[in-house]
Amino acid sequence: MGPTIEGVALTPLKIIPTRGGPVLHMLRADSPRFTEFGEVYFSEVEPGEIKGWKRHLRMHQNFAVPRGQIRFVLYDDRPDSPTRGMVQECALGRPDNYCLLSLPPLLWYSFACTGAEPGLIANVTDLMHDPEESEVIPFESELARKIPYKWAECRSDNR
Amino acid sequence: MGPTIEGVALTPLKIIPTRGGPVLHMLRADSPRFTEFGEVYFSEVEPGEIKGWKRHLRMHQNFAVPRGQIRFVLYDDRPDSPTRGMVQECALGRPDNYCLLSLPPLLWYSFACTGAEPGLIANVTDLMHDPEESEVIPFESELARKIPYKWAECRSDNR
Repeated sequence: MGPTIEGVALTPLKIIPTRGGPVLHMLRADSPRFTEFGEVYFSEVEPGEIKGWKRHLRMHQNFAVPRGQIRFVLYDDRPDSPTRGMVQECALGRPDNYCLLSLPPLLWYSFACTGAEPGLIANVTDLMHDPEESEVIPFESELARKIPYKWAECRSDNR
Repeated sequence: MGPTIEGVALTPLKIIPTRGGPVLHMLRADSPRFTEFGEVYFSEVEPGEIKGWKRHLRMHQNFAVPRGQIRFVLYDDRPDSPTRGMVQECALGRPDNYCLLSLPPLLWYSFACTGAEPGLIANVTDLMHDPEESEVIPFESELARKIPYKWAECRSDNR
Protein backbone atom coordinates (compact mmCIF):
# COMPACT_ATOMS: atom_id res chain seq x y z
CA MET A 1 0.00 0.00 0.00
CA GLY A 2 1.27 3.47 -0.88
CA PRO A 3 1.26 6.62 1.28
CA THR A 4 -2.06 7.58 2.81
CA ILE A 5 -3.83 10.84 3.47
CA GLU A 6 -3.54 12.05 7.07
CA GLY A 7 -6.32 10.49 9.15
CA VAL A 8 -7.29 7.81 6.59
CA ALA A 9 -6.96 4.18 7.68
CA LEU A 10 -7.24 0.97 5.71
CA THR A 11 -7.76 -2.08 7.93
CA PRO A 12 -7.85 -5.63 6.51
CA LEU A 13 -11.03 -7.47 7.49
CA LYS A 14 -11.51 -11.18 8.08
CA ILE A 15 -13.43 -13.44 5.74
CA ILE A 16 -14.33 -16.58 7.67
CA PRO A 17 -15.11 -19.60 5.47
CA THR A 18 -18.27 -21.26 6.75
CA ARG A 19 -20.38 -24.11 5.43
CA GLY A 20 -23.07 -22.55 3.21
CA GLY A 21 -21.24 -19.25 2.76
CA PRO A 22 -18.63 -17.05 4.47
CA VAL A 23 -18.97 -14.70 7.43
CA LEU A 24 -17.49 -11.26 6.70
CA HIS A 25 -16.33 -9.02 9.50
CA MET A 26 -16.90 -5.27 9.36
CA LEU A 27 -16.72 -3.32 12.64
CA ARG A 28 -16.76 -4.13 16.35
CA ALA A 29 -17.26 -1.80 19.30
CA ASP A 30 -13.71 -2.52 20.51
CA SER A 31 -12.09 -1.54 17.20
CA PRO A 32 -9.79 1.50 17.26
CA ARG A 33 -11.88 2.67 14.27
CA PHE A 34 -15.09 2.79 16.30
CA THR A 35 -16.04 5.88 18.27
CA GLU A 36 -19.79 6.32 18.34
CA PHE A 37 -22.69 4.76 16.44
CA GLY A 38 -24.66 7.12 14.21
CA GLU A 39 -26.01 5.01 11.36
CA VAL A 40 -25.36 2.03 9.13
CA TYR A 41 -26.64 2.09 5.55
CA PHE A 42 -25.75 0.78 2.09
CA SER A 43 -24.98 2.45 -1.20
CA GLU A 44 -25.26 0.34 -4.33
CA VAL A 45 -23.35 1.34 -7.45
CA GLU A 46 -24.22 0.03 -10.91
CA PRO A 47 -21.35 -1.18 -13.15
CA GLY A 48 -19.49 1.78 -14.68
CA GLU A 49 -21.30 4.36 -12.56
CA ILE A 50 -19.40 7.00 -10.58
CA LYS A 51 -20.71 8.90 -7.55
CA GLY A 52 -19.20 12.08 -6.07
CA TRP A 53 -17.47 14.37 -5.40
CA LYS A 54 -18.79 14.63 -1.90
CA ARG A 55 -17.53 15.61 1.52
CA HIS A 56 -18.84 15.65 5.06
CA LEU A 57 -18.12 18.48 7.44
CA ARG A 58 -18.30 16.53 10.73
CA MET A 59 -19.03 12.87 9.98
CA HIS A 60 -16.46 10.06 10.23
CA GLN A 61 -17.18 7.16 7.88
CA ASN A 62 -16.20 3.49 7.75
CA PHE A 63 -16.67 1.79 4.38
CA ALA A 64 -16.56 -1.89 3.45
CA VAL A 65 -17.56 -3.58 0.20
CA PRO A 66 -19.09 -7.01 0.84
CA ARG A 67 -20.27 -7.48 -2.79
CA GLY A 68 -18.72 -6.34 -6.05
CA GLN A 69 -15.72 -4.10 -6.68
CA ILE A 70 -15.54 -0.39 -5.84
CA ARG A 71 -12.74 2.11 -6.39
CA PHE A 72 -12.64 5.04 -3.99
CA VAL A 73 -10.70 8.21 -4.74
CA LEU A 74 -9.97 10.60 -1.87
CA TYR A 75 -8.68 14.16 -2.13
CA ASP A 76 -7.28 16.20 0.72
CA ASP A 77 -7.61 19.99 0.46
CA ARG A 78 -7.77 20.66 4.21
CA PRO A 79 -5.75 23.85 4.74
CA ASP A 80 -3.86 22.56 7.78
CA SER A 81 -3.30 18.98 6.66
CA PRO A 82 0.26 17.68 6.27
CA THR A 83 -1.00 15.77 3.21
CA ARG A 84 -2.84 18.72 1.63
CA GLY A 85 -3.14 18.29 -2.13
CA MET A 86 -2.78 14.52 -1.99
CA VAL A 87 -4.98 12.12 -3.95
CA GLN A 88 -5.40 8.56 -2.71
CA GLU A 89 -6.95 5.69 -4.63
CA CYS A 90 -8.30 2.66 -2.89
CA ALA A 91 -9.85 -0.47 -4.43
CA LEU A 92 -12.23 -2.36 -2.16
CA GLY A 93 -13.80 -5.75 -2.81
CA ARG A 94 -13.42 -9.45 -2.16
CA PRO A 95 -11.36 -11.53 -2.18
CA ASP A 96 -8.14 -9.51 -2.23
CA ASN A 97 -9.25 -6.11 -0.93
CA TYR A 98 -11.79 -6.85 1.74
CA CYS A 99 -10.86 -3.96 4.04
CA LEU A 100 -12.36 -1.23 6.18
CA LEU A 101 -11.68 2.22 4.75
CA SER A 102 -11.99 4.81 7.52
CA LEU A 103 -12.38 8.44 6.49
CA PRO A 104 -12.24 11.58 8.63
CA PRO A 105 -14.52 14.53 7.77
CA LEU A 106 -13.54 17.25 5.28
CA LEU A 107 -11.96 14.97 2.67
CA TRP A 108 -13.46 15.00 -0.80
CA TYR A 109 -14.33 11.51 -2.01
CA SER A 110 -15.75 9.85 -5.07
CA PHE A 111 -16.31 6.20 -5.94
CA ALA A 112 -17.09 3.97 -8.89
CA CYS A 113 -18.18 0.41 -9.53
CA THR A 114 -15.31 -1.22 -11.40
CA GLY A 115 -16.75 -4.73 -11.59
CA ALA A 116 -19.26 -6.47 -13.85
CA GLU A 117 -21.94 -6.72 -11.13
CA PRO A 118 -23.30 -3.91 -8.93
CA GLY A 119 -21.03 -3.02 -6.02
CA LEU A 120 -22.44 -2.76 -2.51
CA ILE A 121 -20.87 -0.31 -0.07
CA ALA A 122 -21.72 -0.56 3.62
CA ASN A 123 -21.08 2.60 5.62
CA VAL A 124 -20.96 2.81 9.42
CA THR A 125 -20.91 6.45 10.52
CA ASP A 126 -20.65 8.32 13.81
CA LEU A 127 -23.49 10.70 12.90
CA MET A 128 -26.95 10.12 11.49
CA HIS A 129 -27.61 11.41 7.98
CA ASP A 130 -27.91 15.20 7.99
CA PRO A 131 -27.94 16.98 4.62
CA GLU A 132 -26.70 20.13 6.37
CA GLU A 133 -23.28 18.65 7.08
CA SER A 134 -22.40 17.35 3.61
CA GLU A 135 -21.65 18.89 0.23
CA VAL A 136 -21.84 17.38 -3.24
CA ILE A 137 -20.21 19.05 -6.23
CA PRO A 138 -20.85 17.95 -9.83
CA PHE A 139 -17.85 16.62 -11.79
CA GLU A 140 -18.22 19.44 -14.30
CA SER A 141 -18.11 22.21 -11.68
CA GLU A 142 -15.16 24.57 -11.41
CA LEU A 143 -14.31 23.27 -7.93
CA ALA A 144 -14.37 19.64 -9.07
CA ARG A 145 -12.13 20.45 -12.02
CA LYS A 146 -9.47 21.60 -9.55
CA ILE A 147 -9.29 18.10 -8.07
CA PRO A 148 -6.27 16.47 -9.71
CA TYR A 149 -8.00 13.22 -10.66
CA LYS A 150 -9.66 12.34 -13.94
CA TRP A 151 -12.31 9.63 -13.67
CA ALA A 152 -12.76 9.57 -17.46
CA GLU A 153 -9.24 8.17 -17.95
CA CYS A 154 -9.75 5.74 -15.12
CA ARG A 155 -13.00 4.46 -16.54
CA SER A 156 -11.39 3.36 -19.76
CA ASP A 157 -9.03 1.03 -17.90
CA ASN A 158 -11.88 -0.62 -16.06
CA ARG A 159 -13.24 -2.57 -19.00
CA MET B 1 -48.04 -9.83 7.86
CA GLY B 2 -49.23 -12.61 10.16
CA PRO B 3 -48.84 -12.86 13.95
CA THR B 4 -45.33 -12.40 15.28
CA ILE B 5 -43.36 -13.99 18.06
CA GLU B 6 -43.23 -11.88 21.23
CA GLY B 7 -40.33 -9.43 21.01
CA VAL B 8 -39.76 -9.85 17.25
CA ALA B 9 -40.16 -6.74 15.09
CA LEU B 10 -40.24 -6.33 11.33
CA THR B 11 -39.65 -2.74 10.23
CA PRO B 12 -39.89 -1.66 6.57
CA LEU B 13 -36.71 0.08 5.40
CA LYS B 14 -36.37 2.81 2.80
CA ILE B 15 -34.79 2.25 -0.60
CA ILE B 16 -33.87 5.67 -1.99
CA PRO B 17 -33.46 5.75 -5.79
CA THR B 18 -30.27 7.63 -6.62
CA ARG B 19 -28.43 8.22 -9.89
CA GLY B 20 -25.90 5.42 -10.26
CA GLY B 21 -27.61 3.09 -7.78
CA PRO B 22 -29.92 3.24 -4.74
CA VAL B 23 -29.18 4.08 -1.12
CA LEU B 24 -30.55 1.47 1.29
CA HIS B 25 -31.31 2.36 4.88
CA MET B 26 -30.58 -0.08 7.69
CA LEU B 27 -30.34 1.30 11.24
CA ARG B 28 -29.95 4.72 12.86
CA ALA B 29 -29.03 5.59 16.43
CA ASP B 30 -32.48 7.15 16.95
CA SER B 31 -34.37 4.03 15.87
CA PRO B 32 -36.50 2.33 18.54
CA ARG B 33 -34.68 -0.86 17.41
CA PHE B 34 -31.28 0.50 18.42
CA THR B 35 -29.99 0.09 21.96
CA GLU B 36 -26.23 -0.30 21.97
CA PHE B 37 -23.61 -0.97 19.29
CA GLY B 38 -21.77 -4.26 19.60
CA GLU B 39 -20.82 -5.28 16.08
CA VAL B 40 -21.84 -5.18 12.44
CA TYR B 41 -20.92 -8.10 10.16
CA PHE B 42 -22.24 -9.97 7.12
CA SER B 43 -23.24 -13.55 6.50
CA GLU B 44 -23.38 -14.72 2.92
CA VAL B 45 -25.54 -17.69 2.00
CA GLU B 46 -25.08 -19.65 -1.23
CA PRO B 47 -28.22 -20.53 -3.25
CA GLY B 48 -30.08 -23.46 -1.68
CA GLU B 49 -27.95 -23.47 1.46
CA ILE B 50 -29.49 -23.45 4.93
CA LYS B 51 -27.80 -22.31 8.15
CA GLY B 52 -28.98 -23.02 11.69
CA TRP B 53 -30.49 -23.81 14.08
CA LYS B 54 -28.84 -21.26 16.27
CA ARG B 55 -29.71 -19.12 19.27
CA HIS B 56 -28.06 -16.43 21.32
CA LEU B 57 -28.39 -16.27 25.09
CA ARG B 58 -27.99 -12.50 25.53
CA MET B 59 -27.52 -10.86 22.12
CA HIS B 60 -30.17 -8.81 20.31
CA GLN B 61 -29.85 -8.92 16.53
CA ASN B 62 -31.02 -6.72 13.65
CA PHE B 63 -30.98 -8.34 10.22
CA ALA B 64 -31.35 -6.79 6.77
CA VAL B 65 -30.77 -8.37 3.36
CA PRO B 66 -29.34 -5.82 0.90
CA ARG B 67 -28.57 -8.45 -1.79
CA GLY B 68 -30.38 -11.63 -2.73
CA GLN B 69 -33.29 -13.38 -1.05
CA ILE B 70 -33.23 -14.98 2.39
CA ARG B 71 -35.93 -16.80 4.30
CA PHE B 72 -35.64 -16.72 8.09
CA VAL B 73 -37.47 -19.15 10.33
CA LEU B 74 -37.80 -18.34 14.02
CA TYR B 75 -38.94 -20.65 16.79
CA ASP B 76 -39.95 -19.63 20.27
CA ASP B 77 -39.45 -22.17 23.05
CA ARG B 78 -38.88 -19.62 25.84
CA PRO B 79 -40.67 -21.08 28.88
CA ASP B 80 -42.31 -17.79 29.92
CA SER B 81 -43.16 -16.46 26.47
CA PRO B 82 -46.82 -15.82 25.57
CA THR B 83 -45.96 -17.09 22.07
CA ARG B 84 -44.16 -20.24 23.26
CA GLY B 85 -44.24 -22.94 20.59
CA MET B 86 -44.78 -20.48 17.75
CA VAL B 87 -42.91 -20.68 14.44
CA GLN B 88 -42.56 -17.52 12.37
CA GLU B 89 -41.32 -17.34 8.78
CA CYS B 90 -39.96 -14.16 7.32
CA ALA B 91 -38.73 -13.55 3.76
CA LEU B 92 -36.23 -10.71 3.43
CA GLY B 93 -34.89 -9.20 0.20
CA ARG B 94 -35.40 -6.40 -2.29
CA PRO B 95 -37.55 -5.04 -3.72
CA ASP B 96 -40.65 -6.18 -1.83
CA ASN B 97 -39.26 -7.30 1.52
CA TYR B 98 -36.49 -4.86 2.32
CA CYS B 99 -37.05 -4.79 6.09
CA LEU B 100 -35.21 -4.85 9.38
CA LEU B 101 -35.86 -8.07 11.29
CA SER B 102 -35.14 -7.49 14.99
CA LEU B 103 -34.69 -10.55 17.15
CA PRO B 104 -34.44 -10.80 20.94
CA PRO B 105 -32.13 -13.39 22.52
CA LEU B 106 -33.22 -16.99 23.24
CA LEU B 107 -35.17 -17.55 20.02
CA TRP B 108 -34.02 -20.36 17.76
CA TYR B 109 -33.45 -19.22 14.20
CA SER B 110 -32.43 -20.68 10.90
CA PHE B 111 -32.15 -19.14 7.44
CA ALA B 112 -31.78 -20.15 3.82
CA CYS B 113 -30.94 -18.50 0.53
CA THR B 114 -34.06 -18.83 -1.61
CA GLY B 115 -32.79 -16.88 -4.63
CA ALA B 116 -30.62 -17.72 -7.63
CA GLU B 117 -27.70 -15.56 -6.44
CA PRO B 118 -25.99 -15.63 -3.03
CA GLY B 119 -27.91 -13.77 -0.32
CA LEU B 120 -26.14 -11.25 1.87
CA ILE B 121 -27.34 -10.76 5.44
CA ALA B 122 -26.14 -7.74 7.41
CA ASN B 123 -26.42 -8.08 11.18
CA VAL B 124 -26.15 -5.22 13.68
CA THR B 125 -25.90 -6.58 17.20
CA ASP B 126 -25.72 -5.13 20.69
CA LEU B 127 -22.88 -7.45 21.73
CA MET B 128 -19.61 -8.38 20.08
CA HIS B 129 -19.25 -11.96 18.90
CA ASP B 130 -18.76 -14.29 21.84
CA PRO B 131 -18.98 -18.05 21.20
CA GLU B 132 -19.90 -18.54 24.88
CA GLU B 133 -23.29 -16.89 24.46
CA SER B 134 -24.57 -18.79 21.42
CA GLU B 135 -25.58 -22.36 20.64
CA VAL B 136 -25.81 -24.16 17.33
CA ILE B 137 -27.65 -27.46 16.98
CA PRO B 138 -27.43 -29.64 13.84
CA PHE B 139 -30.68 -30.22 11.90
CA GLU B 140 -30.42 -33.95 12.55
CA SER B 141 -30.12 -33.58 16.35
CA GLU B 142 -32.91 -34.68 18.67
CA LEU B 143 -33.47 -31.11 19.84
CA ALA B 144 -33.71 -29.78 16.29
CA ARG B 145 -36.17 -32.49 15.35
CA LYS B 146 -38.51 -31.13 18.04
CA ILE B 147 -38.74 -27.80 16.21
CA PRO B 148 -41.99 -27.95 14.22
CA TYR B 149 -40.53 -26.78 10.92
CA LYS B 150 -39.23 -28.91 8.08
CA TRP B 151 -36.71 -27.15 5.85
CA ALA B 152 -36.63 -30.09 3.45
CA GLU B 153 -40.24 -29.46 2.40
CA CYS B 154 -39.56 -25.77 2.19
CA ARG B 155 -36.55 -26.23 -0.03
CA SER B 156 -38.52 -28.04 -2.65
CA ASP B 157 -40.82 -25.06 -3.14
CA ASN B 158 -37.90 -22.71 -3.60
CA ARG B 159 -36.89 -23.94 -6.99
